[in-house]
Amino acid sequence: MMLPKNPNEKFAEKKITARKDDYSQWYLDVIAAADLAEYGPVRGCMVIKPHGYALWEKTQKILDEKFKELGVQNAYFPLFIPEKLLKKEEDHVEGFAPETAIVTYAGGKKLEEPLVIRPTSETIMYDVFSNWIKSYRDLPLLINQWANVVRWEMRPRLFLRTVEFLWQEGHTVHETEAEADRYARQMLEIYKDFAENIMAIPVILGVKSESEKFAGAQCTYSLEAMMQDGKALQFATSHNLGQNFAKVFDIKYLDKNGATQYGWQTSWGLSTRTIGGLIMTHSDDKGLVIPPRIASIQVIITTIAPSPENKETVIGKAKEIDKILKNQGIGSLVDSRDIRPGEKYFEWEKKGIPIRVELGPKDIANDSAVLVRRDTGEKIIAPLIDIAKTIADLLAKIQINLFDRALEYQKSRTKTVDTWDDFVKAIEGANFVLAHWSGEKDVEAQIKKETGATIRCIPFNQPAENGQCVKSGKPSTKRVLFAKSY
Amino acid sequence: MMLPKNPNEKFAEKKITARKDDYSQWYLDVIAAADLAEYGPVRGCMVIKPHGYALWEKTQKILDEKFKELGVQNAYFPLFIPEKLLKKEEDHVEGFAPETAIVTYAGGKKLEEPLVIRPTSETIMYDVFSNWIKSYRDLPLLINQWANVVRWEMRPRLFLRTVEFLWQEGHTVHETEAEADRYARQMLEIYKDFAENIMAIPVILGVKSESEKFAGAQCTYSLEAMMQDGKALQFATSHNLGQNFAKVFDIKYLDKNGATQYGWQTSWGLSTRTIGGLIMTHSDDKGLVIPPRIASIQVIITTIAPSPENKETVIGKAKEIDKILKNQGIGSLVDSRDIRPGEKYFEWEKKGIPIRVELGPKDIANDSAVLVRRDTGEKIIAPLIDIAKTIADLLAKIQINLFDRALEYQKSRTKTVDTWDDFVKAIEGANFVLAHWSGEKDVEAQIKKETGATIRCIPFNQPAENGQCVKSGKPSTKRVLFAKSY
Repeated sequence: MMLPKNPNEKFAEKKITARKDDYSQWYLDVIAAADLAEYGPVRGCMVIKPHGYALWEKTQKILDEKFKELGVQNAYFPLFIPEKLLKKEEDHVEGFAPETAIVTYAGGKKLEEPLVIRPTSETIMYDVFSNWIKSYRDLPLLINQWANVVRWEMRPRLFLRTVEFLWQEGHTVHETEAEADRYARQMLEIYKDFAENIMAIPVILGVKSESEKFAGAQCTYSLEAMMQDGKALQFATSHNLGQNFAKVFDIKYLDKNGATQYGWQTSWGLSTRTIGGLIMTHSDDKGLVIPPRIASIQVIITTIAPSPENKETVIGKAKEIDKILKNQGIGSLVDSRDIRPGEKYFEWEKKGIPIRVELGPKDIANDSAVLVRRDTGEKIIAPLIDIAKTIADLLAKIQINLFDRALEYQKSRTKTVDTWDDFVKAIEGANFVLAHWSGEKDVEAQIKKETGATIRCIPFNQPAENGQCVKSGKPSTKRVLFAKSY
Repeated sequence: MMLPKNPNEKFAEKKITARKDDYSQWYLDVIAAADLAEYGPVRGCMVIKPHGYALWEKTQKILDEKFKELGVQNAYFPLFIPEKLLKKEEDHVEGFAPETAIVTYAGGKKLEEPLVIRPTSETIMYDVFSNWIKSYRDLPLLINQWANVVRWEMRPRLFLRTVEFLWQEGHTVHETEAEADRYARQMLEIYKDFAENIMAIPVILGVKSESEKFAGAQCTYSLEAMMQDGKALQFATSHNLGQNFAKVFDIKYLDKNGATQYGWQTSWGLSTRTIGGLIMTHSDDKGLVIPPRIASIQVIITTIAPSPENKETVIGKAKEIDKILKNQGIGSLVDSRDIRPGEKYFEWEKKGIPIRVELGPKDIANDSAVLVRRDTGEKIIAPLIDIAKTIADLLAKIQINLFDRALEYQKSRTKTVDTWDDFVKAIEGANFVLAHWSGEKDVEAQIKKETGATIRCIPFNQPAENGQCVKSGKPSTKRVLFAKSY
């Protein structure tokens, strides 16, 4: 691994706006200061820089392993979708058509049929699946692809809403409705595990309302996370597609009795948007904070070498520690550049590295090093003799602390309300709000219109409870989760 | 890992055309029989199926590690290039413009400036690099991306020439010309190592002629491999870009003395085309042959269980062997499906799995199993006691055998000629031809026109030798490599 360059000098020197002063600007400042991403020459298109891309690579590695354990196989489908294919499923095209980018010229000629750049791949995959599936023996079909997709966003925002983004999209076909639904929910659990145990982001699992579900799905399950401004971010989604697409794309199989049946389908995805969620969950006014388990560089070893004669000793010891840590599977990097220690500290702090090791001649004389936690700023003097164990334990502690902190924050800003006045106040105060809702679409729309809040999900773990819709007063048996969202 | 489905029944049952009868059809038949890829609904766009994509995943994993060891960092740049950016470097746009796909509508509106879908990313990356690089301290900048690119191919061919393909493209900026050139050559060595030691494809390294070099490069290095029809396939390329792009995109840095300098650049890439090369190097009339080191499934354990009462024993033993092999880092898979053993053998043979283990009640009674080599068809009775070692050794042997076989083939079809008659005959006979060339562009063009052969490269290892151009009779000091090519 090389020392990352810090080419954005103007940003490096720029102070990060405090969250309380301007949350949106803080978010952009953190991204710039941590050198994660920037806009490219096309409006809304993002350049993901090495320090940002490393987060995506780790995401890919971890999720890909999980998918494969479940028997999912990776494949790759074309970027281009013929317009007529996209138009086959009515709800689907209605949902996506306004956001598409369209190729009309290629190879120097006007195309006979325009090509849509995939906003998602249901239509092109299912057109192909219909040829692959003949018999129950071909099921379940479990396919995933890691790809770029394009949705023409009107109000782009780095990571959260970009014209092009990276994601994985899983697509499965099953023999029965129950199996498909089980599968869609299983993927939700995989995402939850990743969100909570790797990214340290607490999530609320549930099902979307009819208005908020995926275009063409029977139902959409989602994970909702709270950002530090109290807004919700949809972390990932998993859809039970029922037979909607199967009927349109003619995905049929012969069952064990020789009868022709339509397949039952799911699709599920997680994108580079989660990196936006990661940034907004943990970072502070000093910059990015990366949970250890999603960090490629978990430990930065910074050398302090005031005079030329002890420089070699210090760098030698730093490399020794680096090797010991790497042997323990800890991602570490030595920063022995000839710049002031303070500059190094500042840079790695902004970049969110979980632990900084400060190592100078005095530390070495004492057979110790100073460890600094990025999450709390706490300094610990650690004997060199068992530094790998100390660091491994500390990384585990930081991981837990970040999750606990985020969960506490989410809980402190989740309000249970029963009156419209309280509802409006709670939403204005930027909270998650658990309230009764009549289940009517127009009431949901009215609430959105008046407060900007949408139903994020109908949480799985809400107990049945008789109540009255917070807006219409009609009877309701369950609270749903309202919030403003990204 | 799951048992791959074999959904293309029509292909599965289709006989593979023999190479001698129709080489082009053989290639397509192998791809279909091995379930590697197929065309999607858009002309020239390929669906890479799981068994084909696994080859690309392994390629990514192996190369990515090598790049990172050299300090290369992954990043991601936008799919869309504004037309004006692509047009900045004259030779570059001339080379690529005829093959581009162009987005003219997006978000429901006609775009003010059309967007080109990247055919390669020099222009968009270097526009961004110019902001990243300020000082010699920012150099070298070593960036790679794994991405899809689009080139509107008129005569598409699965893996070899597809409208969209997957690749990695590395882009570096250096302080000096010498360092950039060293870097471009170093990447060539990485590709050579991958070609020869992983894919078992012997390659000839050299520099491209002026007519064949990359549009915008100062010089292009390439690796050329021989396919079984005697044609050349360009395995990968690495370009020394000189300062051509740096001057156009204003990539400047302050050197140690405070003077402004233009950067020296390289770019280098390897694509899914190499999978086409892999297929055509090793496969036979029975189907695909995968060299062990690029195979995800290196060993398929097929159970033979004639009666219900010994089925459990056989499957139990198969799983035991599977576990032992996996523990030794060998990619293995059990096929215990209730189908005739012959069907299983046939399927995995077509799919190119290096070793097939046949395991039945009789084998277990003898504490042995039958191993079948895919490369030679040889059967070996192996005691179960040290089966992991036997298999590991056999995999190593197969790897070497495939390389040696391909190298021998390449050598047997490489002719050194000195007269035009012999040249024409050798090219007609589908050989690689080493011949003298005057170095003149029009002579090169004339040779191509008359024989269809192009200069594949000016090989690095050709000794200096005085001779006469095989076409013009003018003096020449070095032989160059001619061949027909993909």
